[in-house]
Amino acid sequence: MSKPHNRRSARADAEQYILQRQGQPYPASRKIYSAGSNAGVNVAMREIVLQDSVIGGSNVAPLLQANAPVRVYDTSGPYSCADADINIRKGLAPLRQNWITQRGDTEIIQDFSSAYSRQQWQDDSLQALRFEQQAPRRKASGNSPVTQLAYARRGIITPEMEYVAIRENLGRANAEAAADARIQHQGQSFGATLPQQITAEFVRQEIAAGRAILPANINHPELEPMIIGRNFLVKVNANIGNSAVSSSIEEEVEKLLWATRWGADTVMDLSTGRYIHQTREWIIRNSPVPIGTVPLYQALEKVGGIAENLTWDLFRDTLIEQAEQGVDYFTIHAGVRLAYVPLTAKRLTGIVSRGGSIMAKWCLAHHQENFLYQHFDDICDIMRAYDISFSLGDGLRPGSIADANDEAQFAELKTLGELTHRAWAKEVQVMVEGPGHVPMQLIRENMQLQQEYCADAPFYTLGPLTTDIAPGYDHLTSAIGAAQIGWYGCAMLCYVTPKEHLGLPDKNDVKEGLIAYKIAAHAADLAKGHPGAQLRDDALSKARFEFRWQDQFNLSLNPERARDYHDQTLPQESGKVAHFCSMCGPKFCSMKISQDVRDYAEKIAVQQLDAEQGMQTKARQFRQHGAALYHKADTELDGD
Amino acid sequence: MSKPHNRRSARADAEQYILQRQGQPYPASRKIYSAGSNAGVNVAMREIVLQDSVIGGSNVAPLLQANAPVRVYDTSGPYSCADADINIRKGLAPLRQNWITQRGDTEIIQDFSSAYSRQQWQDDSLQALRFEQQAPRRKASGNSPVTQLAYARRGIITPEMEYVAIRENLGRANAEAAADARIQHQGQSFGATLPQQITAEFVRQEIAAGRAILPANINHPELEPMIIGRNFLVKVNANIGNSAVSSSIEEEVEKLLWATRWGADTVMDLSTGRYIHQTREWIIRNSPVPIGTVPLYQALEKVGGIAENLTWDLFRDTLIEQAEQGVDYFTIHAGVRLAYVPLTAKRLTGIVSRGGSIMAKWCLAHHQENFLYQHFDDICDIMRAYDISFSLGDGLRPGSIADANDEAQFAELKTLGELTHRAWAKEVQVMVEGPGHVPMQLIRENMQLQQEYCADAPFYTLGPLTTDIAPGYDHLTSAIGAAQIGWYGCAMLCYVTPKEHLGLPDKNDVKEGLIAYKIAAHAADLAKGHPGAQLRDDALSKARFEFRWQDQFNLSLNPERARDYHDQTLPQESGKVAHFCSMCGPKFCSMKISQDVRDYAEKIAVQQLDAEQGMQTKARQFRQHGAALYHKADTELDGD
Repeated sequence: MSKPHNRRSARADAEQYILQRQGQPYPASRKIYSAGSNAGVNVAMREIVLQDSVIGGSNVAPLLQANAPVRVYDTSGPYSCADADINIRKGLAPLRQNWITQRGDTEIIQDFSSAYSRQQWQDDSLQALRFEQQAPRRKASGNSPVTQLAYARRGIITPEMEYVAIRENLGRANAEAAADARIQHQGQSFGATLPQQITAEFVRQEIAAGRAILPANINHPELEPMIIGRNFLVKVNANIGNSAVSSSIEEEVEKLLWATRWGADTVMDLSTGRYIHQTREWIIRNSPVPIGTVPLYQALEKVGGIAENLTWDLFRDTLIEQAEQGVDYFTIHAGVRLAYVPLTAKRLTGIVSRGGSIMAKWCLAHHQENFLYQHFDDICDIMRAYDISFSLGDGLRPGSIADANDEAQFAELKTLGELTHRAWAKEVQVMVEGPGHVPMQLIRENMQLQQEYCADAPFYTLGPLTTDIAPGYDHLTSAIGAAQIGWYGCAMLCYVTPKEHLGLPDKNDVKEGLIAYKIAAHAADLAKGHPGAQLRDDALSKARFEFRWQDQFNLSLNPERARDYHDQTLPQESGKVAHFCSMCGPKFCSMKISQDVRDYAEKIAVQQLDAEQGMQTKARQFRQHGAALYHKADTELDGD
Repeated sequence: MSKPHNRRSARADAEQYILQRQGQPYPASRKIYSAGSNAGVNVAMREIVLQDSVIGGSNVAPLLQANAPVRVYDTSGPYSCADADINIRKGLAPLRQNWITQRGDTEIIQDFSSAYSRQQWQDDSLQALRFEQQAPRRKASGNSPVTQLAYARRGIITPEMEYVAIRENLGRANAEAAADARIQHQGQSFGATLPQQITAEFVRQEIAAGRAILPANINHPELEPMIIGRNFLVKVNANIGNSAVSSSIEEEVEKLLWATRWGADTVMDLSTGRYIHQTREWIIRNSPVPIGTVPLYQALEKVGGIAENLTWDLFRDTLIEQAEQGVDYFTIHAGVRLAYVPLTAKRLTGIVSRGGSIMAKWCLAHHQENFLYQHFDDICDIMRAYDISFSLGDGLRPGSIADANDEAQFAELKTLGELTHRAWAKEVQVMVEGPGHVPMQLIRENMQLQQEYCADAPFYTLGPLTTDIAPGYDHLTSAIGAAQIGWYGCAMLCYVTPKEHLGLPDKNDVKEGLIAYKIAAHAADLAKGHPGAQLRDDALSKARFEFRWQDQFNLSLNPERARDYHDQTLPQESGKVAHFCSMCGPKFCSMKISQDVRDYAEKIAVQQLDAEQGMQTKARQFRQHGAALYHKADTELDGD
């Protein structure tokens, strides 16, 4: 695992990070497991433990009221479990291995089916870069698909589906039944169906209908099953990957762990440099989340970057290579048809998808139809033998506000709809990629046309960015659009980092991008009215109102930053229990005053005094106790 | 200007910053002035100068094509002018002085009308803190209002109105007429009227109708007139101000300059600590933008923080004190009526507005109607004598997702509607404040009810925050909501910084909050279809596509950051002209490939060859030139 690299420090840090990796819990959190009916279905969740509420003032013994822990969706896998046995060199335990083998429709292959994989395996010079633990690889034993879609259509509820149902529910039935639970606002779901409780049968139906996918390659048994569909929680993808200019294997593995820790539901490895094959193996073996790739990038590497030298045979071998490594979904730019390329000529920013521009160049050079389109059924045949899902690439997505929703974009989208149906005919799972740069008033049309053309296959968009004028802040320009399209029905949001358009994201960029997108996804869940979505907001706001600072930090998406920001002006430990913060200072804290007001007003209501007379009496008492009330009046009024 | 302070370093830095202040242009920008018909109307704008586009490849002499400079709205005042005479101790030149005096309806007062102002002026111990240059103060000479609303209703177009019209247009007629200008997307304006060219008469009509305000106290002649209304560019406010816990006068002046440099259209001084009076004077005298305050904060300071000791007389004196300093708009929490306070008792987070909680406490303590409501007409009489605009405070805004759009909030909003009409009857300008914490699906209702209750008076909202779970990132949770409500018709967005809920913002927080809100406001302008809004996006995207990196940086909202992010991986000067960046590296740059594709496809279209035959011929040629095309094929194909 050593190679020449001129950025030794970053690489050394990364190596340190991954080799010394141990289970590292989130602050004030514990890992809990919720068992299903299928053997081995034991769904990991994170539970944030809260402090008690203190009821009453300081002159009487305060009443303590417990606050139920808050369960949150956990993408971090075993890495956030304190006593997990982590060894990056060995990879994660194959959670799904038995489920896959017990289905009896796959077989172990004796050698890699890909010529390139065999060559890489036999090249001794790559020994040092190679992932050591090689598990046997599988493929479908017959011609029948081994996809979750095929099972779902046959009425089979797989352990993966049950896992997903439990995972999506987050035990919310208990939380909502709690005495102090608040009624969530009614959502506006734009036609989404959001059952109060997700059952495994519901998951099966959604997959069978093509409205959701459960990306899970049989060669990636390590992943914790998750689902992507508009009737489930909105998901977030993080892109990682080295480029020719930057970063090493160690750094990419570090980014994977980092991304899942900060909430990435899936991770795309977009590496384009050398050692893509080896990097990918390290990533997949250590990933608790589905991994997506754009096989075209590696294929292009294999032909020295000369797009017009790409061939179907070479591409096919790349698909199989990656399939047997365990990639869970492939971005395939089969919608960039020859006839659409001239439609981009008048654009302000042409074709901005890498895959799209490569295929456009190939089409023009050969004046032939896109070979991915021509061989689409062949691609399906490969993917269904490993259960790889399609992410139908939007190679003609707009790269600027000016180019949004144009003819080229929607021509391709229509073709993606056609391809969706062709993939479904082969029982391959499909999601569809979307833009890009789109001003707010044009976002809805994207969602509507995608649903229409692609028959409700899940939509997976990059942003969209709602303005072009803020490079350095495109996580933010795009979080605005992502929140909206998530609300309208987009199933997964591909993050954008602050480095977008400017450079390769580093660890901090990955974190900032993810948090922006966790915010967007959660805002969308709230807006749709996703059951239980408001529980965490309510818990955090209650903690805030009760000055439980530690709980407020721990419930937030980034506890470290919340604590740090607070401590910049009030670093003392006393600040963590203070009934104010440095924003307004002790005398002006509206929350503090408001608590006094509330105690007082509630008291009046409870006592059901004659409104007018009672209030006046109270007002006199209130004035008598005036100064005391301002600081610690609760108990005095309690004594009335 | 010295006082004891335990945070010497921050203060010393700030002192340094403001005393050494010189005109500091934005990168690649120049200050230009556009003259009006009224004497002294000379509207400052910022013009970003661009490099030429290079057409053609490297083997022939390249053609250079000029790119017109891009005009952008400039809130920074003289501070961004290289040769401006800046002296913080003297304050800005009184741009509007002649306009005010020539109207002949105001007079110079011989002494401050406020007892508190006189006392502060006579207190020698405050000498060191005092702003040195005391200009004469004015008030209306009769009982007639001296407000822009009063003039507008009488059909008078003031120089301020003409200034605003020119400022809003940004010279876009020229830019849109340019040969390469692109047609902007059609907006969705939700009923806004957005004329292609803003005339002074249009400004007058909007002010007369109450749909817009032009906040401009006659005692703040230094400000550059601006307008707030849904039919104009969406504006952004930044809050600054020290609290009892933190910060000094020097730091607040620094924050003012900083905020206007980063795009604050107005600034609210929310100081609550000592020396509020002195801090405010320094701020106003140096501010090119309108200054808002919440007079209640200072009034509370004067009664030692005891809300129930507040009286109308004391409050009245505070209004006059601030009026004669030049505050341009007052937040007045007159809508927190006694009867509404109990409606907050069942809330998750009670009353979270400082002003709201103070007034609620006062109401309960006295069991009397809010004295601001009772004396509302008296307040109007003061404000119309100086042309101070109302910002009707939403003291009962929701402080959590759970409390959004509840009975308390909308009861107050209805009262704000009543007060709007009462203010208009007195010819006082009015805008109305709004929430707060609101999930996306409930934002629209806020805008609709505000328009209905308040008869289209401008709406001015804090965010709204679309989720509670991300303290440390509430600039982002709220930019999502702000962009939406701006699109729906909100006229001004009050920024939220990353420190919201956690501590007092520092300089960096102010910048981050402002950029988030400039993004939100601009995204809203684009979505509404504001004429010319897309020009900057198009210019930046064109620069991006043409690899004019410097232009891309300079056109962005934060050129320093864009440049810095780029340079983190490609620091060399050659990276600034490279036809790729570190994201994808040289071989995978879709923009580069796309330019090749475009050149090629356009050529074909121009030559109008028989589509099929021509393309096949081209394909052969393309393959022959293959390798060359990939790197520098333009010229070879040009030779065909």
